[in-house]
Amino acid sequence: MDAADLSPVVLIGAGLVGASIGQALTAAGAKVHLRDLLPAHARVAASLGAGSVEPPSPTEVRLVVVSVPPMAIARVVSESLTAYPTATVTDVGSVKAPVLHEIWQRAGDLSRYVGSHPMAGSQHSGPMTARHDLFVDRSWVVTPHRRSAPESVQRVQTLVAACRAVGIVMDVDDHDAAVARVSHLPHLVAVLMAGHLIDVPAEHLRLAGQGLRDVTRIAGSDPDLWDQIVATNAGAVVPELKALHAELGRAIAAVEEAATDPSPGGGLHGLLQRGVDGTHRIPGKHGAAATAYVSVVVAIPDTPGALAKLFADVGEAGVNVEDVAIEHDNVRQVGYLALSVTPDQEVGLVATMRSRGWDVQV
Amino acid sequence: MDAADLSPVVLIGAGLVGASIGQALTAAGAKVHLRDLLPAHARVAASLGAGSVEPPSPTEVRLVVVSVPPMAIARVVSESLTAYPTATVTDVGSVKAPVLHEIWQRAGDLSRYVGSHPMAGSQHSGPMTARHDLFVDRSWVVTPHRRSAPESVQRVQTLVAACRAVGIVMDVDDHDAAVARVSHLPHLVAVLMAGHLIDVPAEHLRLAGQGLRDVTRIAGSDPDLWDQIVATNAGAVVPELKALHAELGRAIAAVEEAATDPSPGGGLHGLLQRGVDGTHRIPGKHGAAATAYVSVVVAIPDTPGALAKLFADVGEAGVNVEDVAIEHDNVRQVGYLALSVTPDQEVGLVATMRSRGWDVQV
Repeated sequence: MDAADLSPVVLIGAGLVGASIGQALTAAGAKVHLRDLLPAHARVAASLGAGSVEPPSPTEVRLVVVSVPPMAIARVVSESLTAYPTATVTDVGSVKAPVLHEIWQRAGDLSRYVGSHPMAGSQHSGPMTARHDLFVDRSWVVTPHRRSAPESVQRVQTLVAACRAVGIVMDVDDHDAAVARVSHLPHLVAVLMAGHLIDVPAEHLRLAGQGLRDVTRIAGSDPDLWDQIVATNAGAVVPELKALHAELGRAIAAVEEAATDPSPGGGLHGLLQRGVDGTHRIPGKHGAAATAYVSVVVAIPDTPGALAKLFADVGEAGVNVEDVAIEHDNVRQVGYLALSVTPDQEVGLVATMRSRGWDVQV
Repeated sequence: MDAADLSPVVLIGAGLVGASIGQALTAAGAKVHLRDLLPAHARVAASLGAGSVEPPSPTEVRLVVVSVPPMAIARVVSESLTAYPTATVTDVGSVKAPVLHEIWQRAGDLSRYVGSHPMAGSQHSGPMTARHDLFVDRSWVVTPHRRSAPESVQRVQTLVAACRAVGIVMDVDDHDAAVARVSHLPHLVAVLMAGHLIDVPAEHLRLAGQGLRDVTRIAGSDPDLWDQIVATNAGAVVPELKALHAELGRAIAAVEEAATDPSPGGGLHGLLQRGVDGTHRIPGKHGAAATAYVSVVVAIPDTPGALAKLFADVGEAGVNVEDVAIEHDNVRQVGYLALSVTPDQEVGLVATMRSRGWDVQV
C-alpha cells in the first residue's frame, strides 16, 4: 500500500500541520481534498501545493485526516465516520485517550478510527508556514485501540510513511503519559519562566542571553491551542507538575544549603549533575538515538605550531570530529587533546595519527 | 584610549572566555600575556592567537583580566593587585557583590579593581572553543564601586570596546539581581526539567521534539562552574526560586480547574497568555530592543494564482516581510493576508500594493 492507494484523501483543517500533510501526500502521489472552517485557509493551502478545494465523492474517500483544534477533534472525527462511510479516519491531535473516549460515547464506527500524532510543528501556525518536509525523520505515533480494523491501521501507517516520518505504535494511555512528560510539562515550564519575566525590569532584561531565549521559546506558542491541549491531558499533566513542584522545593533547600556551606559536592552539585545526565537521555535530532562518542587522546608536544599540525593531520585522516577538549596530566605537566569521534572512526584515526608520529594514548 | 594603550595585558585563566578575550585583544592590537594553572591551556590558547605565554615585566602591566572559576576570583584579583602594582585589575565572573566584598576584606588597593561581566559564553568550555568574535554586539556589564579610580573604569571600558561588546554600567547589587533573574533562574529551571527526565522511560523520550531540547539545552553546562555561580549568588537566586515555586503552585491549581471546567478564558489561559507576553519582553538577539511590527492587510481574491502574484508584488516592493498570517472575515467570507513589516516600511508597501491594484485594508 502506498500513498496513491489512500486517494482520495480528505484533509479537514488546513493549518500548519494539516497543510504540511497535504503537501507531503500530494508530493507522494495522493489526491488530497482540503476543507477548513475558514475557506481562505483551504484556498491558501491549495495554492501552496497541499491539494485541491474541490469536494470528492464521499463514498470513494479512503482516508480522512482531521487536523482541527483539540476541542473539536472528537466531533469532527465522528461526523467524518458518518459522512465518509468507507473511509479510515485519523486525527493528528496531541492527546489521544479523551478523544477516543468521546468518539466511543458518540457511537460511530470505531473500527475505522485510528488516532495518530506527528511529533512536529513549530511556534508558528496557519497554512502559510506549511512545509512538505515537516515530518521527515520525525516520530509519528499511531494509536490503534482494540476495535481498530487492521486495514485502518495499515492506511494510517501508509500516511505516516508517505510523510516520510518514523511510525511508533503505542496505546492511547501510554501516548498521553509520554507527551505529558516530554511535551506538555516542558511547555508549562517554559510558560512559567517566561511569565516570570513580566515583573523583571527592562534594565535587567538587557542582560538576557541565548540561554533565556532557548528556555522560553516555546512559551510563545498559541495560548488558545495549548489551553485545550493541557486541559484535555490534565490527568497526566498534573502528577508531573506536582513532582516538579516537589523537586523545585528540594532545589531551593539545596541552594540555601550551598550558600551557607559552599564546599563542593553538596546537594546543589548533585542537582546540577542530574540536569546534565537528563540532557544526555534525550534522543538526538529527528528521533535518532543519542550518539555515544569515544575519545582519541593525543599528547600535545611543547613545540611551536604543534597544534596546527595536529589539526591538519586530523583533517587529513578524514574523520568527523564531534568535539575537542584539552586534558592535563598534573604529574607529567603535559597536555593532551581529546578528540571525540563516533566509535566506527576510532581505529582509523588512531592508526593515522600514530603513522604520522603522534603520541596517541590508549 | 584604545586597545594598544592597555598593553601589556595579563590574562589569567585561558578557558573559553579568557582565550576569546585574548584573541579579541590581540586582534585589536594589544600585547597579551597568558597564564593558566594548567600550562597546556595557556599554550593552546597562545597557539590559537590569544597572545603569548612569555611573562611581561610586572611593573609595566596596565590591565589584568581574571578569568578563573568563581571561587578563585577574589583571591586571584587580590594577588594580582599586589603582583602588578600599577595595573587595573578586572574579572569576568558571573556574580559581582560577594567578590567585591571579599577583595575588600583582603584589603588590596581597591581603586585599581573594577569588576565586569561579559554576557557571552556557551555550554562548551576550554580554550579550544574560543572565538575572537564571541563578544561582538553582546552586553558586557562594568561594575564600578565608590572607590574605583576613573582611570581604572576607563581601562575596563576600553577592554569592552576592544572586544566590540556593548558596555552597560551597573552597581554590583543591581547586576547580581539581574543575572539571578535572566540567567541563574532560567539555568536552574532547565536543570530541573532535564533532571526530571531521568525517571522518564526511554520509550517515552522517543517522542521528544525540539521544544524539549531547547528548554533543557543549558542544563548540559559544567556543573562545577554552576555550583559555584549559584552558591555565590544564592542571596539573589533564592527569592526568585521561591517566587517561581509559588507560581508553579498556582499553575497546578489552574490546570486542575481547567480539567473540570474546560470553558475557554480560565486561569490556565491567563497563565499561557502571560508566557506569551513574557517572551515578548526579551530583547532581540545581541541585546537589540524587541522590535514592534505593524500589519499591512491585503484581501486575497478568489482567483487561481492570486497568492503567487501577491507575493511577487510584495517582493518587488522591496520590503522585508517579518511574518505573514492569514486573517478571515466570517461575514464577508473573504480571506486576508496580514504582512508584518517595520513601521518605516508601512507607507511604502501600502502605496505600492494599491498602485498594483490590490485591496489594502486600513
